[in-house]
Amino acid sequence: MALPDLSLYLVLDPVLCGGADGMVSTAVAAAQGGAGIIQLRAPDWKKRELAACGRALIRALAPYGVPLVVDDQVDVAMAIGAAGAHVGQKDLPAEDARRLMGPEAIIGLSVSNAAELEASRSLAAAGVVDYLGIGPIESTSTKPDAAAPLGLPGFAALAAVKPCPVVAIGSVKIHNAAALAAAGADGIAVVSAICGTADPRAASEALLAAFRSGLKK
Amino acid sequence: MALPDLSLYLVLDPVLCGGADGMVSTAVAAAQGGAGIIQLRAPDWKKRELAACGRALIRALAPYGVPLVVDDQVDVAMAIGAAGAHVGQKDLPAEDARRLMGPEAIIGLSVSNAAELEASRSLAAAGVVDYLGIGPIESTSTKPDAAAPLGLPGFAALAAVKPCPVVAIGSVKIHNAAALAAAGADGIAVVSAICGTADPRAASEALLAAFRSGLKK
Repeated sequence: MALPDLSLYLVLDPVLCGGADGMVSTAVAAAQGGAGIIQLRAPDWKKRELAACGRALIRALAPYGVPLVVDDQVDVAMAIGAAGAHVGQKDLPAEDARRLMGPEAIIGLSVSNAAELEASRSLAAAGVVDYLGIGPIESTSTKPDAAAPLGLPGFAALAAVKPCPVVAIGSVKIHNAAALAAAGADGIAVVSAICGTADPRAASEALLAAFRSGLKK
Repeated sequence: MALPDLSLYLVLDPVLCGGADGMVSTAVAAAQGGAGIIQLRAPDWKKRELAACGRALIRALAPYGVPLVVDDQVDVAMAIGAAGAHVGQKDLPAEDARRLMGPEAIIGLSVSNAAELEASRSLAAAGVVDYLGIGPIESTSTKPDAAAPLGLPGFAALAAVKPCPVVAIGSVKIHNAAALAAAGADGIAVVSAICGTADPRAASEALLAAFRSGLKK
């Protein structure tokens, strides 16, 4: 499929959202607020629960045309007919995810340093990966095992040589959304800036507006 | 593929085997000692490491014609070309595993009580599952989250109504191998009875002999 608008990329957190029902309602609110792509990420969940939640998300998001990608669990993504999968450096290689899911799937890859970015160039050129998630921007509570923070200058340096669209991830909030856009991000991926907030739709709208305000005219 | 000889079914444990190299050497020794099917199970491992280990196992087992199945991670099984996958009650539904892996794959399902066995009847009749793993026989240290132990009488009661071949699993050792065969097991699945022993080939031979001694003539 054509790559969706990455400007606002929501990564769902089951704890912050309060479980599967909360993830669905948060996803719908975010879609209404302008999120263009949503990722299901629940690393502590078993696959059966993850698949059930993913199917509920796909049904709920269909009216908005917002694609769902599944973190890490390519088999769950395939079983539920998700639009794609996002893999990290310790997950299945992106080549395997692409081969298993086919040419139409959205395949994203996490990159956290210059070496990983360099290694992703051939993957992007070959159409194996559609976008990169570059981060973390700052240290983040929602991913305890994340790599060292890049900071804004570090992100800008990686984004400057990007081989395909990139989203900034890891402690992305309303306060740095515009700066990340100015630094070359094609989108911002957020977790706690939407999940668990009082009004996820309003939070999404504000994040999207902030991001767009930073784009080079 | 045709279902292999389930008489001795080795489930590899990465800790007991001492890592990936130890799993490969243990698997080869077990194959030499008569194991007919080997499962890769490393629930704490990330998929990239699991896939690399699985590929090494497939290469090492090829000369012996012993198939490898992967626990839970159907995507890894597919990526590495494993013979099949084994799923538990909280993993991807067996129907999904079968659909994703195709009609030739070996699909196994864990069953730990009468209700799960009953639910497996239609799956077995439809060719979705090829065998059941019934257990645990006794409480086991290698699977802390296992269901309540069945005991030998409990296993025998379930095995008596089996809808397809069954292997006994969960604290299966040399001392109960014959009794499980007599109770209706088509095979014994073992972990610590082989993994981490001084001579896994000899342990395999002894387990297989004990199991066969209990089969009804």
